[in-house]
Amino acid sequence: MKKTVAFLLLLLPALFVQFSGYAQKHPIAFTTASDIALVKKNIPTNPLLKQSFDEIKTAVDAVVGKDIDVPVPKDAGGGYTHDKHKDNYNLMFNSGMLFQLTGDVKYAKLVKDLFFKYAVLNPTLKNHPEATSASPGRIFWQALNDANWLVYAGLAFDLIHDYLTPAERAQIAAGAFKPEVDYFTKDITSWFDLIHNHAVWACAGVGIVGIATDNEEYVKMALYGSKKDGKAGLTAHLDGLFSPNGYYNEGPYYTRYAVLPFFLFANAVNHAKPDIKIFERRNKILKQALEGALEQTNLDGGFYSYNDALKEKTFVSNEVVVALNIAWDVYGANDAYLPVAKAQGRVTLSKGGLGVSQALLQNKNIAPYYPYKSVVFTDGADGKMGGVSVLRTGKNKNLTSLIFKYSSHGLSHGHYDKLNINLYDNGNEILQDYGASRFINIEQKWGGRYLPETKSYTQQSIAHNTVTVDETSHFNGIESVSEKYHPVPLYQVVGNMPVQASAALDTNAYKDVQMHRGVYLITLPGATKPLLVDFFRTISNNTHQYDLPFNYIGNVISTNFKYTTHSNNLQTLGNKNGYQHIWKEASANVKMPLAQFTFLNNQTFYTISSYVKDSAQLFFTRTGANDPNFNLRREPSYITRTRAKNMFAINVLELHGNFNPISEITTNSYATVTSVLPVIDTEAYSGAQIRIAGKQLLVFQSNKIFDSKTPHQLVVGGVTYSWVGPFAVYFDNKKL
Amino acid sequence: MKKTVAFLLLLLPALFVQFSGYAQKHPIAFTTASDIALVKKNIPTNPLLKQSFDEIKTAVDAVVGKDIDVPVPKDAGGGYTHDKHKDNYNLMFNSGMLFQLTGDVKYAKLVKDLFFKYAVLNPTLKNHPEATSASPGRIFWQALNDANWLVYAGLAFDLIHDYLTPAERAQIAAGAFKPEVDYFTKDITSWFDLIHNHAVWACAGVGIVGIATDNEEYVKMALYGSKKDGKAGLTAHLDGLFSPNGYYNEGPYYTRYAVLPFFLFANAVNHAKPDIKIFERRNKILKQALEGALEQTNLDGGFYSYNDALKEKTFVSNEVVVALNIAWDVYGANDAYLPVAKAQGRVTLSKGGLGVSQALLQNKNIAPYYPYKSVVFTDGADGKMGGVSVLRTGKNKNLTSLIFKYSSHGLSHGHYDKLNINLYDNGNEILQDYGASRFINIEQKWGGRYLPETKSYTQQSIAHNTVTVDETSHFNGIESVSEKYHPVPLYQVVGNMPVQASAALDTNAYKDVQMHRGVYLITLPGATKPLLVDFFRTISNNTHQYDLPFNYIGNVISTNFKYTTHSNNLQTLGNKNGYQHIWKEASANVKMPLAQFTFLNNQTFYTISSYVKDSAQLFFTRTGANDPNFNLRREPSYITRTRAKNMFAINVLELHGNFNPISEITTNSYATVTSVLPVIDTEAYSGAQIRIAGKQLLVFQSNKIFDSKTPHQLVVGGVTYSWVGPFAVYFDNKKL
Repeated sequence: MKKTVAFLLLLLPALFVQFSGYAQKHPIAFTTASDIALVKKNIPTNPLLKQSFDEIKTAVDAVVGKDIDVPVPKDAGGGYTHDKHKDNYNLMFNSGMLFQLTGDVKYAKLVKDLFFKYAVLNPTLKNHPEATSASPGRIFWQALNDANWLVYAGLAFDLIHDYLTPAERAQIAAGAFKPEVDYFTKDITSWFDLIHNHAVWACAGVGIVGIATDNEEYVKMALYGSKKDGKAGLTAHLDGLFSPNGYYNEGPYYTRYAVLPFFLFANAVNHAKPDIKIFERRNKILKQALEGALEQTNLDGGFYSYNDALKEKTFVSNEVVVALNIAWDVYGANDAYLPVAKAQGRVTLSKGGLGVSQALLQNKNIAPYYPYKSVVFTDGADGKMGGVSVLRTGKNKNLTSLIFKYSSHGLSHGHYDKLNINLYDNGNEILQDYGASRFINIEQKWGGRYLPETKSYTQQSIAHNTVTVDETSHFNGIESVSEKYHPVPLYQVVGNMPVQASAALDTNAYKDVQMHRGVYLITLPGATKPLLVDFFRTISNNTHQYDLPFNYIGNVISTNFKYTTHSNNLQTLGNKNGYQHIWKEASANVKMPLAQFTFLNNQTFYTISSYVKDSAQLFFTRTGANDPNFNLRREPSYITRTRAKNMFAINVLELHGNFNPISEITTNSYATVTSVLPVIDTEAYSGAQIRIAGKQLLVFQSNKIFDSKTPHQLVVGGVTYSWVGPFAVYFDNKKL
Repeated sequence: MKKTVAFLLLLLPALFVQFSGYAQKHPIAFTTASDIALVKKNIPTNPLLKQSFDEIKTAVDAVVGKDIDVPVPKDAGGGYTHDKHKDNYNLMFNSGMLFQLTGDVKYAKLVKDLFFKYAVLNPTLKNHPEATSASPGRIFWQALNDANWLVYAGLAFDLIHDYLTPAERAQIAAGAFKPEVDYFTKDITSWFDLIHNHAVWACAGVGIVGIATDNEEYVKMALYGSKKDGKAGLTAHLDGLFSPNGYYNEGPYYTRYAVLPFFLFANAVNHAKPDIKIFERRNKILKQALEGALEQTNLDGGFYSYNDALKEKTFVSNEVVVALNIAWDVYGANDAYLPVAKAQGRVTLSKGGLGVSQALLQNKNIAPYYPYKSVVFTDGADGKMGGVSVLRTGKNKNLTSLIFKYSSHGLSHGHYDKLNINLYDNGNEILQDYGASRFINIEQKWGGRYLPETKSYTQQSIAHNTVTVDETSHFNGIESVSEKYHPVPLYQVVGNMPVQASAALDTNAYKDVQMHRGVYLITLPGATKPLLVDFFRTISNNTHQYDLPFNYIGNVISTNFKYTTHSNNLQTLGNKNGYQHIWKEASANVKMPLAQFTFLNNQTFYTISSYVKDSAQLFFTRTGANDPNFNLRREPSYITRTRAKNMFAINVLELHGNFNPISEITTNSYATVTSVLPVIDTEAYSGAQIRIAGKQLLVFQSNKIFDSKTPHQLVVGGVTYSWVGPFAVYFDNKKL
């Protein structure tokens, strides 16, 4: 029967072929027979492949032949039943792989026995007792985890497909899979059809189960949504969740998470329905997505922590291993991936994994780091919903990365952080994004869920290196409103040049305040480290309070102003919108035009030199107030506060010097910036004069005309400056 | 002339030889002609040696031939003149080495030119303008740094000795050296003759200059004190600053610092006066000192931070490189040193450095870590001034180290921390000692000196994991009193056994309170991690407040008791003796017998299960109050407070579970201890019953009889327990 169909297929036109893949050869979802043969052959001689094989074998051999518990769901994340079901789906997949790679039926039997238990359990399940979200799970507290289960159980089924009798297959499909698939596609359809990372997993689960069980209906729903109209499902996700250059709407932390089901499902589709050419879709959007995620990591592999993110996650996590190994197979070998693969230290037991491990073996000169470069990501399916610019200078360990965010909200994991900046230097976080408050999978910490402080503090504007107006977050902290808008990118000039620039305008975060930020990463002649010149303008008809924090990480070294520490009694900075979580450790009223604050992070000094007006207040703060369960880290911030209608905040961040506590040698611990003054601030232009070690740095920007061809002219201090394009930087009377 | 003397020496009796070494062959201080020849020969083929040579050569070549500034002393640590003079003495030494290794006279000339400048400057110097200490410096703010200068300048002189004419030698000796040596040995004699690390440097400086300039008078003062009576100088330091098993009185951080002048000077003495057999003195005390320092490091090489200590310092610092390389030469090859040498990644250009680098090349199986073992250090020259026990379990990365400190004060860098414990696990600090508050060599931070918060907080008892009575530090925080006393060690049972124990009694820290602590590091059958059972008894005729902090590092995961957080308004825990620096973040009044607190440090969970009486209070605190210059880190503590005459505090610290944020797998995040109760607390015995996962752990200790041979008997719960020795531990009815 199978042979007949396969034979017939060859004669049918491509369009029809796509949807007639019933009863294909298995395995086909995660791997194929020919790939298995290749991997098998190489395991004995390839150390990394062998290590990955041994790890799986050791883990599975410890339980094979034993009765494995499939408990009635009860616990939240981190609890016994949660972890057991998670263990089980990993075990099923791994044991299925071992069956393929060793031919030993004991591994197939283990999977089958577990499936029979799930076939009994799953039809009995209602919503999980710990379910708190709008999309409750059944085996787990949230549907997302059920989708994870479907993905791995589906892959496992495919791996032992030929070991099962047709009756066994039918029994498992009906008992273990159908209740879950029906629940997704019939009960919580709106969740399944959402354009969102949870739905990516849900579709991958349903689709992989479809391919594994030869259920074309499932596959169609997974590819095109429950209504099969293409408005949901994998294709809609590929088209809707990424921008044209691979930026994933929820940010890099979730890109990591999303690439796994994308790649796993696309890989299965590519095997089962090669004519769809799923990996080619949208100019190889999955390749761009993977590389976009890698570009948004720190030197230690940690994903940039804007939006909801946990800083512990790095590119060595399993999701990226799998995606990178599949990418290696489908998009071809790529040396740029090798530093990442080397750090990962393991590969999948697949053709891609084999390729990666061989390249690691053969390549004697693997670069120390991913080849990070400056990059401008657009946001939105059409690339017209703002974006994120990453401005970089320096090589290897000396890399400096400035992230400027003017993207759209980022779905449910977005923060109220329009025009936020973050800075990484030498592999360290310098100006941080807090990320999210969560202890993933630690049951005592609210079942491992996002903690309430994520909403009450970490998502609020004041937690970010951007302006908060009148102690109220952007869009009043209302997600449905924030999702409607995005800032307008004005110009992005990035690359290997002395001045990199990125500017954006937001007109929606506040009703009567426009926010305009231009950041300039300037490498002065002969300098080894760049200088950040940061123009933040607010425009309003009414007087407001503008708070601009620098969430620095480091030790206070010195200030050029006096401040009062609140030595015996700490008060909060405010009482709502995140302010209730911030202790005011010290405050200052400054009258001079220059406020300087130097801090030390690891072995480098950083000085923020700010132009301040008479009314300015400065605060040294720390998080941790109103934190009844000790969910927040205690993090410092340096907040500048201005009361004005219009504000033109000029901040210069200087990266300087070195402190070596081992050799006890300190160099350049003092800033070289000695003056920061505005020279113009009109509707048309803003500009600043900065004195550095006796020389003059001038930064001008156009506030209205942003194209690269318009000529501009300004007379400052009797000198006429003429240039073309939206900004100009002069140092020591020479244009940079 | 030289040859005649050398010839004559062979004929003279040993005793005479010792003090007739005038006009010896040079170089002789840091190295000798034959060693230089050996190193020269090997540089081309030995990568590490070559790297060390190249580093020095690159640094010196950058300035050789240029006019080098010898500024009039002006700045404190981290300032220009401070750093310049420091640079200069390193440069002189390095350039001297290059002269020896290359024969190029330009390197000798560089040294000579600098010496001529110092010969002009030094006679003009009075006390340094930034001098604040009782032992002011002249080139630097403190005399200690002048001693550093003498050491390296002396070594440099020796290296170019033969390049200089006799007249030049005389000019340098009189101008550059004599004012400094006279200042040390005539003006601040009491400082020079102190038994203290500063004086070790001072003697090394004077002695090395003596050897380099063939000035026997200097050498004698350096060996035997300014009065040459043996009550000071190197020999007195070797006899007085170390205990018989190599414990250095000021603790490991200063051992690191002291080993350098000890080894450098001893090495020079060993070359110039081999008959003294200085390296053999006191059963090779310098070898024991070096190894004692290495034993007191964390897996990352950081020295245990009790007493004044900066956590950034590790065994890769130059001091340890030099000491280890000399030890390799004089005490012979030692594989135990190789993990340290490998981490150091550089060697000295000496016979020892050559030996180390060859061993690193040839040895393909260098252990990942120094072979740490449990060890009991005695304190005091006679070993009878208390001590420090280090109880260890686990191998490699899994090492657990409990440090129990019952030593004497530790000179001016000691803390008021009798019976303090610290815990390290998996290379992480779990129960920390704050160390000292200092930003070494950062001028903005009070010239790089110890900051006021070192005295006001970090040295105070409340900053330590030991009891503070009535909010007053041990010995009322008076150093001169603390230096007179030390606790009494009761018993120390350490090694590869299921129960390791250490106990000590203090009767002097408080007038009417005796403090008795017994710590038991117990590895239960089948367990991978140990359990710490901590008995802290206080005995008094009067009611007192006893505060026992656990200065944990980590995130609060859970407690089994309710507490009140001080959400909107933080107050300090007290107003003096360190309490003024502590914010009270949360407090609890507990009524039940068991208080449990779980925290997470990196990937491991730790639970403190405490037996609490009705009157107990618990505090979650954080440092940072009354810190006007942001000198303190913000560190948490968990403080148990008892009001009583006698207290029997039983705390069980359980090390458990694993949290892997990358794989999102959490295991054993809950403690297994379910009950902690006293079963006896009399003058004669104390004992506790601890229930762990349904089984009973009993810990008994004798409070009066501590020898290992006396039999003891106790009836508890109708069962008779008989054992021999000061303590007994039973688990599940079996004696461990």
